[in-house]
Amino acid sequence: MSVALDIAALGARAQAMIEELGAISASPDHLTRFFLTPEHRRAADLVGRWMREAGLEVSEDALGTVRGHWHPAGPDAPRLLIGSHIDTVADAGKYDGAMGVVLGILALQEIVRAGLSRPYGIDVLAFGDEEGTRFPTTLSSSAACAGVFQTASLNATDAQGVTLREAILAYGNATDDIPKAAYATGGVIAYVEAHIEQGPVLEAEGEPLGVVTAIAGASRLSVTVTGEAGHAGTVPMRMRRDALPGAAEMALAVERIAKADRHGMVATVGRMHIDPGSINVIPARVTFTVDLRSGSDMSRREALERFEREAHRIADQRHLGVVISAFHEVTTVPCYRDLQLRLRNAVADLGHRAPLLPSGAGHDGQAMVNLCPVGMLFVRCKGGISHNPAEYASPEDMGLAAAALIRFIERFQLPQLDGATDGAQN
Amino acid sequence: MSVALDIAALGARAQAMIEELGAISASPDHLTRFFLTPEHRRAADLVGRWMREAGLEVSEDALGTVRGHWHPAGPDAPRLLIGSHIDTVADAGKYDGAMGVVLGILALQEIVRAGLSRPYGIDVLAFGDEEGTRFPTTLSSSAACAGVFQTASLNATDAQGVTLREAILAYGNATDDIPKAAYATGGVIAYVEAHIEQGPVLEAEGEPLGVVTAIAGASRLSVTVTGEAGHAGTVPMRMRRDALPGAAEMALAVERIAKADRHGMVATVGRMHIDPGSINVIPARVTFTVDLRSGSDMSRREALERFEREAHRIADQRHLGVVISAFHEVTTVPCYRDLQLRLRNAVADLGHRAPLLPSGAGHDGQAMVNLCPVGMLFVRCKGGISHNPAEYASPEDMGLAAAALIRFIERFQLPQLDGATDGAQN
Repeated sequence: MSVALDIAALGARAQAMIEELGAISASPDHLTRFFLTPEHRRAADLVGRWMREAGLEVSEDALGTVRGHWHPAGPDAPRLLIGSHIDTVADAGKYDGAMGVVLGILALQEIVRAGLSRPYGIDVLAFGDEEGTRFPTTLSSSAACAGVFQTASLNATDAQGVTLREAILAYGNATDDIPKAAYATGGVIAYVEAHIEQGPVLEAEGEPLGVVTAIAGASRLSVTVTGEAGHAGTVPMRMRRDALPGAAEMALAVERIAKADRHGMVATVGRMHIDPGSINVIPARVTFTVDLRSGSDMSRREALERFEREAHRIADQRHLGVVISAFHEVTTVPCYRDLQLRLRNAVADLGHRAPLLPSGAGHDGQAMVNLCPVGMLFVRCKGGISHNPAEYASPEDMGLAAAALIRFIERFQLPQLDGATDGAQN
Repeated sequence: MSVALDIAALGARAQAMIEELGAISASPDHLTRFFLTPEHRRAADLVGRWMREAGLEVSEDALGTVRGHWHPAGPDAPRLLIGSHIDTVADAGKYDGAMGVVLGILALQEIVRAGLSRPYGIDVLAFGDEEGTRFPTTLSSSAACAGVFQTASLNATDAQGVTLREAILAYGNATDDIPKAAYATGGVIAYVEAHIEQGPVLEAEGEPLGVVTAIAGASRLSVTVTGEAGHAGTVPMRMRRDALPGAAEMALAVERIAKADRHGMVATVGRMHIDPGSINVIPARVTFTVDLRSGSDMSRREALERFEREAHRIADQRHLGVVISAFHEVTTVPCYRDLQLRLRNAVADLGHRAPLLPSGAGHDGQAMVNLCPVGMLFVRCKGGISHNPAEYASPEDMGLAAAALIRFIERFQLPQLDGATDGAQN
């Protein structure tokens, strides 16, 4: 059997729900909804109400994750997890996170309404700490579900000096309950998330939906190039040790290395600071950042080594000093090959081809992979814009994404998944 | 005849005078002496006393320039001018400006003591507004002497909102007397200044003294490169319009153009601002400055044109926008060829070769050239450092410079100078 789908109606409902959720904010002027705040509470309550209306049984764990349960095979049957997050960055768009939660609820609502029976259950999850905008503890809520919550992060503080421990208590939950948030290993089949792409690839390819091959690993470097200050008018070119052209060559090396890569590597020099920074003084020191991401950890590490060699070669040629320090590293999470295939088949049922693409942005799947295989469905977003009020996905595309989740669930039969987690080779 | 020279004694005396002058500051901790301040007054009084002790007749004009007159041929005979300035930047060194005034006084003291007779007179000048650190009116005091003072600059204000007009009155002078500060055109033979090099060339060549070919012309540009912001993780390299690598290529073009020049051109990108300047956001806009100087206005203009072509080529290739605006332009002041030769001969008398070099920094000669031919003698300074408490010229080198000025005056005979002002061709 096949659930009858009204894609336009699904899209319109998704849009209406996203607008309602997007109105819940710390400010009337723009959307800002941080983890464990009163606005998080209101958003969680709204999501819980939608879940109940969809026929799901609602609970909430110690980290505030709202869970809507569908358990046609009883509470002890294995579970498929579908979710995303309801926290936002400051001055956010309405779709990042919220859309994945809404689409999960809509899909389950159709599944419940159609009276499907399955030997497993499905939980729709609404995480609260994906953006990491309140505490320096990104993914704490999905980490709790995955059983990898770091208790040390309870001492992390927000900008007002409130610890995560205090925030959990103020939210009405108990830190003692955090271990109970963890799903039993082996009790979970997979975690699947629908999310806006946050990039321009699907729009450029004219496709509403895409399937993620891997959540890219990332390295962040701080590079300091040291030369010698001098009067811009009096030191001849041949006698200069100007840090700026050296840094410029290194920034171009970053770009060249990423462009030569075959694994969709991206690299960005986003900050650059010139010291002393006067019009008429030769720069003594330039500090810049490198953000480098790839769907392949091996290619990322090779690129880092190559950059280090290039930077030292440039510095040596110019008699400059260079110090490179890596201050952030996240390894790649390959999406489970079998889930990629199943998601593509579901999209193909709707007449679209679902290009494969890596996710350059981070997602809750980076925590959930500690528990189970991870799959992601991307929805085209306008101009590739995210983390911005201009963020937009069309109702049509969201309707298609809800329909793809429904088809994915309909086709999803136990026994278990097969196929290797070789997203890194895509 | 030839004046007997004790170079070591001259150097020691110069050093002692510079220490005494350098102690006159707005602050006990560092040297800061701005135009028309109480510390300017005290410095001017000290300089006036030294001039009288040297046998000169002292006067002061409306802009506070102290003048020490030696007029063996009477007050109406033509005059040779020797000078520099006694204002400083904030947290300055003791040599910049002060040394040229001190050496002029010491040279005249020996000339007067030796009883030389000449058919012309000599004025030693101590200007007060060379650094332009109080008002945006650089060179107003030498401009007044040269008869090119801009009356509009009387309305210029300092950081406290005090106008130049008010500051002149508070200093005890009258703005009505400004026209009287101007020397009569034709009544002045030449202006000669000794100054620390403020660069590393003489030190690298192992020479105590150098002769300036030209005070380099300068252009300052503001360059804005515009691309498109985007998520550092999600926008593929081929779809980016990243302003930073474009700006990096342009900064390297600046360096390449200056290095290829044969007129001692120097070019510096001293400031660069990245917008939005986040680690994980592709730069939407980069603004940077270019400071470009050359002893040849033609080569400077050609370089500017070449940079403009290169910047547009780079922007076009990268689908970026670029706007270049020139916000400052000073034309080259060639040093009078005959004065260069006479200064070199004077140095040769002392057994040194006096390399020719351009001045990349600005000097009062840029105003004085409106009145008469200009010549400059450079004194080696340690590490090329200036505008910094670490600024240093050795007593030996200063003694040689005083001796060179004495030999220059001894050899200086009317009739008038000959030779073209073709410093730009050096």
